[in-house]
Order: sequence, then C-alpha cells, then structure tokens
Amino acid sequence: MTALFPTASPASTGATASPLAPSPLAYVPFVSVDKMMRLVTTIGVETFLAELAGYIEADFRRWESFDKTVRIPAHCAQGVIELMPTSDGALYGFKYVNGHPGNTRDGRQTVTAFGVLSDLTNGYPLLFSEMTILTALRTAATSAMAARILARPDARCMALIGNGAQSEFQALAFRALLGVTHLRLFDIDPKATEKCRRNLAPFGFDIRTCDSAEAAVEGADILTTVTADKKNATILSDNMIGAGVHINAVGGDSPGKTELQREILTRAGIFVEYPPQTRIEGEIQQLPEDHPVTELWRVMAGECPGRTSAGQITLFDSVGFAIEDFAALRYVHDRLERFGLFDKLDLLADPDDPRDLLGMVLRSTGGLSNT
Amino acid sequence: MTALFPTASPASTGATASPLAPSPLAYVPFVSVDKMMRLVTTIGVETFLAELAGYIEADFRRWESFDKTVRIPAHCAQGVIELMPTSDGALYGFKYVNGHPGNTRDGRQTVTAFGVLSDLTNGYPLLFSEMTILTALRTAATSAMAARILARPDARCMALIGNGAQSEFQALAFRALLGVTHLRLFDIDPKATEKCRRNLAPFGFDIRTCDSAEAAVEGADILTTVTADKKNATILSDNMIGAGVHINAVGGDSPGKTELQREILTRAGIFVEYPPQTRIEGEIQQLPEDHPVTELWRVMAGECPGRTSAGQITLFDSVGFAIEDFAALRYVHDRLERFGLFDKLDLLADPDDPRDLLGMVLRSTGGLSNT
Repeated sequence: MTALFPTASPASTGATASPLAPSPLAYVPFVSVDKMMRLVTTIGVETFLAELAGYIEADFRRWESFDKTVRIPAHCAQGVIELMPTSDGALYGFKYVNGHPGNTRDGRQTVTAFGVLSDLTNGYPLLFSEMTILTALRTAATSAMAARILARPDARCMALIGNGAQSEFQALAFRALLGVTHLRLFDIDPKATEKCRRNLAPFGFDIRTCDSAEAAVEGADILTTVTADKKNATILSDNMIGAGVHINAVGGDSPGKTELQREILTRAGIFVEYPPQTRIEGEIQQLPEDHPVTELWRVMAGECPGRTSAGQITLFDSVGFAIEDFAALRYVHDRLERFGLFDKLDLLADPDDPRDLLGMVLRSTGGLSNT
Repeated sequence: MTALFPTASPASTGATASPLAPSPLAYVPFVSVDKMMRLVTTIGVETFLAELAGYIEADFRRWESFDKTVRIPAHCAQGVIELMPTSDGALYGFKYVNGHPGNTRDGRQTVTAFGVLSDLTNGYPLLFSEMTILTALRTAATSAMAARILARPDARCMALIGNGAQSEFQALAFRALLGVTHLRLFDIDPKATEKCRRNLAPFGFDIRTCDSAEAAVEGADILTTVTADKKNATILSDNMIGAGVHINAVGGDSPGKTELQREILTRAGIFVEYPPQTRIEGEIQQLPEDHPVTELWRVMAGECPGRTSAGQITLFDSVGFAIEDFAALRYVHDRLERFGLFDKLDLLADPDDPRDLLGMVLRSTGGLSNT
C-alpha cells in the first residue's frame, strides 16, 4: 500500500492549508475511463494483460486468505446489478457491475462496472476506478492464466467463437501468456467478426474468419466461447470436441445462460473459480451438484493436478470471481504513482476535529445559512 | 428520474462530438464533500433535514416494495467495511460505510461513507455521492421522523447524551420536525459538550450543559443517546426512565455495542427499522429473539399503533437501514438539476459500437502502442 498523498495530522493540516481546503486525507484517487485507456495504451495492452495475470495468479495462490462470498444481486426484468466484495484481511475490494442485454438498443453498454479498493484496517478507499475496461482485461487475463496451466504446452491455434467486446482481449491475453499465434473467428454476426479481425490484424496474428462454429474449431487447440445470448445455447456440441483440446468457456456466466452441450462436460476435466458461484452461474449448472470439479487455485498451489494427459479434454468454466477484480484493482493501484494517470476525488469528509462534522459543514460557506 | 444529460444515440453522438470525447452517457453526476456541504448550506440544514425526512417517510410507507437484506460486512481487528444495498425494482442504491473506532488517532474519521443510486432497468449509475455528511443527516432525519410518531405531541425538551459528530444533527432534526426547543447536553468529555453547545447556540435553542446523564434526563421528554464507545455500556439505567418519555437510542448499532440497561427494554414499546438487522445490531440484541417489536413502517402505514398512552415509554432502537440511504440518495439526486452542485465523472466506458471496447481503447491515444 503506497501512500499516494502525504498523511497529515489534523494539527499540521490546519497549520499549512487553508481552513476551507480539504486535507490530503479527504482525497481518493480516481481512474476514469479516459485515464484507464491511457494507462492501457501507455503500458501496452499485452504487457498490461501479462502483468495483470501475474497479480491474479498471486492472489489465486493465497486463495485461502480471502473472505469469499457469492455476488449480491438485484434483479429486474431488464437485467441485474451485482456487488462483488472480497477481502484478504488487509485490503478490501468490491466491484459494481450490471448486466442488461437490451441496453445496446439505446446505445448503452450491456455491462458496465466500477470498483473500489480500500485499506480494511482504516476503512478508507485507496482507489476508485472504472472497471468496464478493467473487467474485460481481467477476464481475459484469468482465461489465459488458466489455459497456461491447462492447455497443451504446444497449443498455438485458438478458435474464438463470439466476436463481441471480450473477444479481442481474449486473443491478446492468449498471445501474451501462451504464445497463441493463429486465430479462427466465428460469430453469428459477420460484422462482429470483421470488427474483431480488423482490431487484431495489427498485432500480427494469423487470422482465419469462419462461416460456422464447426469450421472455427477445426484444427484449433484451444476453443474459446464468448457469446452473449442470455439463454441456454449450444455453441459447442459434443461431436465438435476432439481429444486434447482446452475449452475456455467464458460466455456461460449466469443462471440459464450456458454455451456447451451437456455431454461435453461429462467428458472433460472441469476447472472452476469458486464452486458455490460456478454451480449457479457456470456451464456446470447443467450437472448434478456433486459432479466433481477442481478449483483452479488448488492446481496453482500444487494441491491438485491440472491436465493429466495430452489427450484429456480440459474445461475452464469461467464465470468471473471477486478475487480477480481485487487483483485487478491492486494492479492499477500499484501503478498510480508511477504513471500519475488519475484524478483526485474529494470523497471523504475530513473535519479538523472528527467530532465536529456539523461545524465543518456550517463553516464551509463562511457562515450559517440555515433558516 | 430526471435526465440530467441528454440521451444520445451512438450515431448522433458521433456526428456532434469529437470522436475521442466521451458521450453524455459516459458521465455520472458526482456530489463531492464540498458540493454536499454547499448543498446543505444552500438549502439550509433544517430545511434539508425536514425535506429528507419526507423522502425517508415516503419510502417507509412503501416498505414492502423494496428488496431488503442485512448489511454485507468485511471485518478486521480494527473495524468493519459494510455494503448496504437495496432496490425498489426501478431504482437501486447502495452505500459503502466503514466503522473504525481507532481512526481518530491518525486524524481520520471513525465513519466515512459514499453511495451510488442507479437506474435498475439499465444498470447505469445516476448519482455517485459522498455519504459521510449525508448519513449524519439521514440518521438524524430518521430519528426525528420516528419521534414525530412516537413521542408525546407536547415534547419540547430533549436530553442529548453523547455530544459527538451526530449530536447536533439530531438536535436540528428534532427542532425541524417536532419543534424541540430545549436541550440538555451531556458527554463524558466536556470539550465535546462545549463543541455541541457552540455549534447549536446560533440556532436559538435553550441549552443546558449537564454534569451527568442523570442530570441531563431530568425533565426531558425525549432522551437521545448517541455515544460512540464500542462496548455494552449503560448510558441509561432503568431508574432514570420516567413515564411517558420517548427514547431515541442511536449509538447502540452493532453486535456488542449497546447503551441501555436491559430492564428499560422490557418496560418500553420497542420500534425498529428492519428486525433481522436490529436483532443483531440494536439494543434488542440483549433480549430473546422472540421479544415483540414493532416495525416502524407498519406504524407509518397505519397497520400498527404507535404510542398507545401518554404514560407509555416508547423506544426507537435505531441502527440505520439501507432504505434510509436509498431515500437520501433519491433526495440528493432530485436536487442535482435545480442546484447544479455536482461534477461529472467519466465513469462509464461508452464506445460508439458497444462491441468495440478494444477499438475504443486503442483509438483513445490515436494509435496502437502495444508492444
């Protein structure tokens, strides 16, 4: 935890600053969308993804030190707003994220997010950040981190089914972490595929656009599904899955939303983030509650095997978990000082005398204006 | 829900704005500490409290339309961070609040808070606001709202035991809503009492400072306890409580933190906000789980009686509930346009094509800078 702003005692603040100016303790660093975009392009998107994966891996390796809970949702007919909190006992983070599939009709995003990282020992926020872009990055970094353990080491070709907002981040993370060089793109909307191809072309991938999911998976070592339909879909069917592939199932992430035919699941070694959440939200919602799954962190901690043979089908049933957001907020926080890409928000009331909140309010305009 | 910023389709945004400038949809109104202080002093603190109580009352009257949950806490040795979400099906709100009793040692606040109000139908935040000051206001407004129903109509004299940050807000809310004119102050720290007296003197109260809690309650119609010690204390003992008083117990608000001798509770008609939370956090944590209590909203909705005789002892066992914060955020949101006391935060990524998040990031600096 780097102190970005000098810690000042109330007395020293009073001596050096205007009595009406907030003290340094009142400010919280804010990473806006603009600042996040500049941070990503300054660091470089692939470097960002690789470094971020390192933070996520570090937190997965100390999984048991975290307070964990399933998301806290509020539903309505159009969608859901969720809070995703977690803490390691020293730092606390939460993400606010919505999911509203109809939003694009009014030019809004389906998913937007923001989050806060705090010092749990005093409760003060250390960072307030946009997380729409950051979530896209952490989702891709987590997928690639899992695949680095689970895919065959010689995997270089990835099918990318669903070419929406998340797809390019997946491709770049797999390139940065696994050296994936060949992409096979498919989306039911050719315009999405073309957008994906256009965005990725400058990065030097060998890209093939395909007319069907069946064509996309041909010869691919890794199958990534990132479709957006909110329903039980069959993006991959059993006959499309050959020996030794790694399936990175990202789009099936809420109750009633899956992408894989059930038969695939019974053939695969299944790896998950947090079972109580994945049983509800992931592909394994199609399976009995007691179907065996392996927690990814146990593989990273050396407690459980990952891939056990070159012919095994491995599946990362990704739904996204609070610890990944926590790691992402840590990553951004650790880069505030070096890059300076943040604004300061006057978020915390900080009277000279903590017991004199009303006095601070009344003096703020230089006099009483109550009636 | 007033549209503060014009809603623009992606096409019209692209036609009129710089391609690199965020669209109006990207901005969230932010009420900083400075802006909140200006809002309070512009409206006038007593008017603010009275109007805010009206919003809280309106939401209590439609209690059953809300999604309710107990707070979601993260604990450490030094304190707690809590999230308090709720929704009425159309709007969603949550508050982040910490409680760290040792914070004042480094010049930090024991309690700080901020919150968000969102449109649940599209998930987009409508307001991001400081809530340290706003929580102090809503707590006092809720107390006075309860007392307006529960105290004797002729109550004009209030004992105020505990003269910290919350105390003056209580006094002003009781003056605004009930016409309380006489105050009897006591705190174990005379400096706190003097601070409270000094802040309240300009408002025209008849104020007596007292040497003991016993002296403070003498002749008072309403007894307000707002002490801060985090332990089971006996601020009021049974022999201090005469017939017909209303007790406004605010400081007992977490497990192991109470202010009233248990015997008082068995003599009083007890009114609470949300029983599942108050059983854990309020004075009634001292009572068996099945001890009868009345939900305040039922009194306001005419379903249950409030005070039943002039001699009854009534107790509002206040712990603070998410619906009060929701109402407070609604109140502030409804005043954004009129007073203009907010900044705009670039919080929401808003690409022209919602599926082209990476493209937006890469174009943000006018070129690729990946490595």
